Amino acid sequence: MKKFMDDDFLLETETAKLLFHKYAKNTPIIDYHCHIDAKEIAEDIRFENITQVWLGGDHYKWRLMRANGVDEKYITGDASDREKFQKWAETLPKAIGNPLYHWSHLELQRYFGYHGVLNGDTAEEVWNKCNAVLQQEDMSARGMILKSNVTHLCTTDDPADSLEWHKKIKADKSFNVQVLPAWRPEAAMKIADKGFATYVRRLAGAAEMDIGSYDDFKAAMIKRLEFFNQMGCRASDHSLDYAMYVPATAAEIEDIFASALAGEDITYEEDLKFKTAFLLFIGREYKRLGWVIQLHYGVKRDNNSKMFKSFGANAGCDCIDSYTPSAQLADLLNGLQEADALPKTILYSLNPIDNAAIGSVMGCFQHGPEAGYIQQGSAWWFNDNKTGITEQLTSLANQGLLGCFVGMLTDSRSFVSYTRHEYFRRILCNLIGNLVENGEYPYDESTLGKLVEDISYNNTKNYFHFA
Amino acid sequence: MKKFMDDDFLLETETAKLLFHKYAKNTPIIDYHCHIDAKEIAEDIRFENITQVWLGGDHYKWRLMRANGVDEKYITGDASDREKFQKWAETLPKAIGNPLYHWSHLELQRYFGYHGVLNGDTAEEVWNKCNAVLQQEDMSARGMILKSNVTHLCTTDDPADSLEWHKKIKADKSFNVQVLPAWRPEAAMKIADKGFATYVRRLAGAAEMDIGSYDDFKAAMIKRLEFFNQMGCRASDHSLDYAMYVPATAAEIEDIFASALAGEDITYEEDLKFKTAFLLFIGREYKRLGWVIQLHYGVKRDNNSKMFKSFGANAGCDCIDSYTPSAQLADLLNGLQEADALPKTILYSLNPIDNAAIGSVMGCFQHGPEAGYIQQGSAWWFNDNKTGITEQLTSLANQGLLGCFVGMLTDSRSFVSYTRHEYFRRILCNLIGNLVENGEYPYDESTLGKLVEDISYNNTKNYFHFA
Amino acid sequence: MKKFMDDDFLLETETAKLLFHKYAKNTPIIDYHCHIDAKEIAEDIRFENITQVWLGGDHYKWRLMRANGVDEKYITGDASDREKFQKWAETLPKAIGNPLYHWSHLELQRYFGYHGVLNGDTAEEVWNKCNAVLQQEDMSARGMILKSNVTHLCTTDDPADSLEWHKKIKADKSFNVQVLPAWRPEAAMKIADKGFATYVRRLAGAAEMDIGSYDDFKAAMIKRLEFFNQMGCRASDHSLDYAMYVPATAAEIEDIFASALAGEDITYEEDLKFKTAFLLFIGREYKRLGWVIQLHYGVKRDNNSKMFKSFGANAGCDCIDSYTPSAQLADLLNGLQEADALPKTILYSLNPIDNAAIGSVMGCFQHGPEAGYIQQGSAWWFNDNKTGITEQLTSLANQGLLGCFVGMLTDSRSFVSYTRHEYFRRILCNLIGNLVENGEYPYDESTLGKLVEDISYNNTKNYFHFA
Repeated sequence: MKKFMDDDFLLETETAKLLFHKYAKNTPIIDYHCHIDAKEIAEDIRFENITQVWLGGDHYKWRLMRANGVDEKYITGDASDREKFQKWAETLPKAIGNPLYHWSHLELQRYFGYHGVLNGDTAEEVWNKCNAVLQQEDMSARGMILKSNVTHLCTTDDPADSLEWHKKIKADKSFNVQVLPAWRPEAAMKIADKGFATYVRRLAGAAEMDIGSYDDFKAAMIKRLEFFNQMGCRASDHSLDYAMYVPATAAEIEDIFASALAGEDITYEEDLKFKTAFLLFIGREYKRLGWVIQLHYGVKRDNNSKMFKSFGANAGCDCIDSYTPSAQLADLLNGLQEADALPKTILYSLNPIDNAAIGSVMGCFQHGPEAGYIQQGSAWWFNDNKTGITEQLTSLANQGLLGCFVGMLTDSRSFVSYTRHEYFRRILCNLIGNLVENGEYPYDESTLGKLVEDISYNNTKNYFHFA
Repeated sequence: MKKFMDDDFLLETETAKLLFHKYAKNTPIIDYHCHIDAKEIAEDIRFENITQVWLGGDHYKWRLMRANGVDEKYITGDASDREKFQKWAETLPKAIGNPLYHWSHLELQRYFGYHGVLNGDTAEEVWNKCNAVLQQEDMSARGMILKSNVTHLCTTDDPADSLEWHKKIKADKSFNVQVLPAWRPEAAMKIADKGFATYVRRLAGAAEMDIGSYDDFKAAMIKRLEFFNQMGCRASDHSLDYAMYVPATAAEIEDIFASALAGEDITYEEDLKFKTAFLLFIGREYKRLGWVIQLHYGVKRDNNSKMFKSFGANAGCDCIDSYTPSAQLADLLNGLQEADALPKTILYSLNPIDNAAIGSVMGCFQHGPEAGYIQQGSAWWFNDNKTGITEQLTSLANQGLLGCFVGMLTDSRSFVSYTRHEYFRRILCNLIGNLVENGEYPYDESTLGKLVEDISYNNTKNYFHFA
Repeated sequence: MKKFMDDDFLLETETAKLLFHKYAKNTPIIDYHCHIDAKEIAEDIRFENITQVWLGGDHYKWRLMRANGVDEKYITGDASDREKFQKWAETLPKAIGNPLYHWSHLELQRYFGYHGVLNGDTAEEVWNKCNAVLQQEDMSARGMILKSNVTHLCTTDDPADSLEWHKKIKADKSFNVQVLPAWRPEAAMKIADKGFATYVRRLAGAAEMDIGSYDDFKAAMIKRLEFFNQMGCRASDHSLDYAMYVPATAAEIEDIFASALAGEDITYEEDLKFKTAFLLFIGREYKRLGWVIQLHYGVKRDNNSKMFKSFGANAGCDCIDSYTPSAQLADLLNGLQEADALPKTILYSLNPIDNAAIGSVMGCFQHGPEAGYIQQGSAWWFNDNKTGITEQLTSLANQGLLGCFVGMLTDSRSFVSYTRHEYFRRILCNLIGNLVENGEYPYDESTLGKLVEDISYNNTKNYFHFA
């Protein structure tokens, strides 16, 4: 029996151990997609206790606590931090096989030096230990990032954002991690939302121009793109219900845009047309700038009306949307290519059953001169677990070149979630180790070591053209 | 090499063996969903031969025999019981990897003391042995249930059913197993069926009132619910094409109901509206009574017209329906919650690719004070095999709290199918054993033993509030 | 650690090794579905170099090269054969876990006696070795087929084809492999295509009759069917977007056919109706002749317009189409059965997530007197890898009788791809070995050996009624 989460956690073979300890473990991290608030880095915030670090905004943990029948008071309510931590600790033993069991203990080991087991009985001990560690000088936001060996970190930002905090971080020469913006025009694509016209005004302000037409809107976008590009942005991110392709004429799009500005209702069909047109426009710009587009889809958000009314979005009430037609995904990529608007692309579906279909679509649009032009993103959100990661890597390997993969990201707003990169790398090394030890790939340490380092770091750096 | 189906069948690690033999094996059984006829228990029926026990109504076995090219005469036709048994025995060796291979041999071992291999050559020996055992005093219906260590057993019953056999069983103090009705308003939801008006009259008779409107229909339902509740019913079961959500006004529903009573055609849209409305009504009642709703969906029934004409339903001609939109499932659960009509819910899709989506939907609606308010039912029907069970457990563990799972049921009309609980528990113990021996969960016998006992028995007892 | 791709490649247990080496390895091959050009066999063509053998028409390899950023010049362009080979060799190391890694090395071992590793450094050595081997007398098209122990080989042919090359091969008594046509009425079903009327004229020529109506069309088809049947054809193949079922009246079909002949546009609905009607007609003929129908679906072809314009079809730009409703598949099979038009059927979906649904549909339509009347085809195209094959075999075993499976095919236009049968058999033996060594099936060498030989060869021979 292997010891619980020791140094060889998830590493089943000697090859896996060698690859992880010698090549993966000390390779730095590029976290090209996270939701950390740049302000918190700029201000180098500190945390009083482990509940603030762990349970403040983590809907993954909230969901498990609710599944355990814990009252909302101890989750997002007004119970004390100590009480909330107790409820989480009591929930954890039932989470056998859940990634949060592993993430939590990896974080306790790596950041807090606690190598025991967290449960209701040990909660008090863990609470005290973690809170003491949090008082250490090096446990500020920046301290935790540095301790994690992060070289680049991409936040998530609206085109209208001033990026003032990014500027401050950049100006501070004492902190060498590259904290870069990532462009997420979420509000800009939500033409059917009540707030769209308001957003357009906000964008106009940021771009310092009037926006009276879709042409103006595009011009404003381009101004902001240039600004983000100067600020080091290389990644964009789009959230779609599904990867749709509903082309329309330029005149139609102008009409739809005008209707939205006038506060009129936008039909679902119009919404799809606008989104398609917007991607065709902006994809061309991304391509010109050498940026990467990330397409996230297969999500249905805010399903619990009661929670949404009392709490708002990101309450832990999102789910997989099983409508993700691969045919339209293929048509979208082709439409982008035909419009000379297909940038480097990372595809993420929240539905793990889409792995094979995505792999098959990617293969249709790969082309030089860069390797891995179209990528499938690493196992995302509900799939960010041992099974999900293994299945995504296996599918990638089956359908294309695993050696070109750009690897892991955290998708997190936490400063201690970099252990997810470790989790991913252990699973990756184990998978490669199994292939090698099973005679399916030659044992050649230098080739294997390079594969691991490339997928852990180098591919990402090259793909995004990070400095 | 492990011996064929010995005591350690499916148990690959020492931890798995310990957990199964010390904790799972002797824990009693609650079979909260089966199709046994209460009359057969009340009359404590006996069987003359193994063909009656095994092949009388078992469409699982029929399908395999047809796949082997066996003539229908030897399946549902007029061949002798001995001939039918021979054909089944000759089919079995080709069923390598099929759960029926395991179920059959588990049943031979546990109920008939036969530890060899059944095939065409051994059929005569097995036939004689089993038939001799069936003559034993303790091999009546009740004897087999008692031998199986069953404490509670829920049948499947129509709201209009008199439950007379349940009353007789309850009155007989010599039989201590709780044989409880489960409420399945199948006919009540089939508003588009020709027989709906007839069913409504039957229901009116049972409820001793007139039913002239949907309001009357609901009132009659409530009377029957109260009766079932007094009879110890705690579980309901609904079969849906898919989990739909098509809300309508009260007036619309009254019109649809009136049309159906008048024998008019009901459109598919009207059918969906009625089913949605019925669930919104009845869910509220279930919640009030503390009952559990089971939603079974993703099935297309009676696909083979020729077999349906000659044999009727349950001939072994049902299949997975791949249209099971997760978005509507989420909307249905939200609609129920908004109407204060979301009871404890167990979701079952016949399509195994829905595992992740279901897990993600469940997480949106979990809430206290009871743990595991929303459940995914155990791997069902075509998924009730080693792969299917392992994948469902793994998905549950990935998406939520495996420790809160209410576990297995037989879904069977046989008195010897309780070995499916054993099959499930072996797979469960093996999965947990693998996690522990791989260092993914701490080795702590008391925690692990409790996990296994809870999933095998205690969670179910608590969830259904069984006495 | 196992050696890289040695004799026991993919064989993890002693039982697997025994079954492969003693039973599977030397069993001959029936390749009942391939795309080899009969002319190349008739002319017994030879190859100058390994690039001609490997990269001439192999879109699997092209896709991987594009994924590696290789310029099209070195893929389908005008670079030299040596340069193209170099680019492929440099791509391969990144293809860890990809079936092409294994296929390529199996082919190097079995046909070229090269047991090393192919990569950029060894490319020159491999190039020279392979090209030398290709000069050997026995390395012609026929030589490679004979060396592969092939007894029957089915090409892919249009109903209007003269089969002249098949006649020549048949007439040549020096070559004992049965090279049989397989009937693929692809153009005949594409009623919405611009070229349909032209095709009808071609068919009329082949059938030596006028075609002015759908009735004529059917009569011409029957004439060609008889001719193919005389030529030894036993297999047909239909490519569908999905298995649709949209029945129509005879008059409707005549109208649709007339419109198509007149060059009018055919709607999608009309297209589905025509295809349904055509299958109902031709299925009856197949059944009468004892032929097997293969239904391939779940593909979206020619997704990359740029590549299609410059290269045409089969450029490596096809993908999985995720719209494959199981309900219509069930309705189609039932419609065929009701019309006495359900021949022996092999179902292939390109989407691996359809495995369980297909298995469940098959079970509804199995019937005697032949075993395995409805089959799921082996893991196809994007699924033809270790995971895909294992999952398809596991699903088959879960849902039906693995022992009745007709097994592998190459689906290839290459003379060295018969190693895919070896790949399949290794995976099959390993899967069976695991079941046996895990105590899930009795160890009985004669039963196991027969299972393996049946799935590798005998079942196919019996199913197709090959001589």
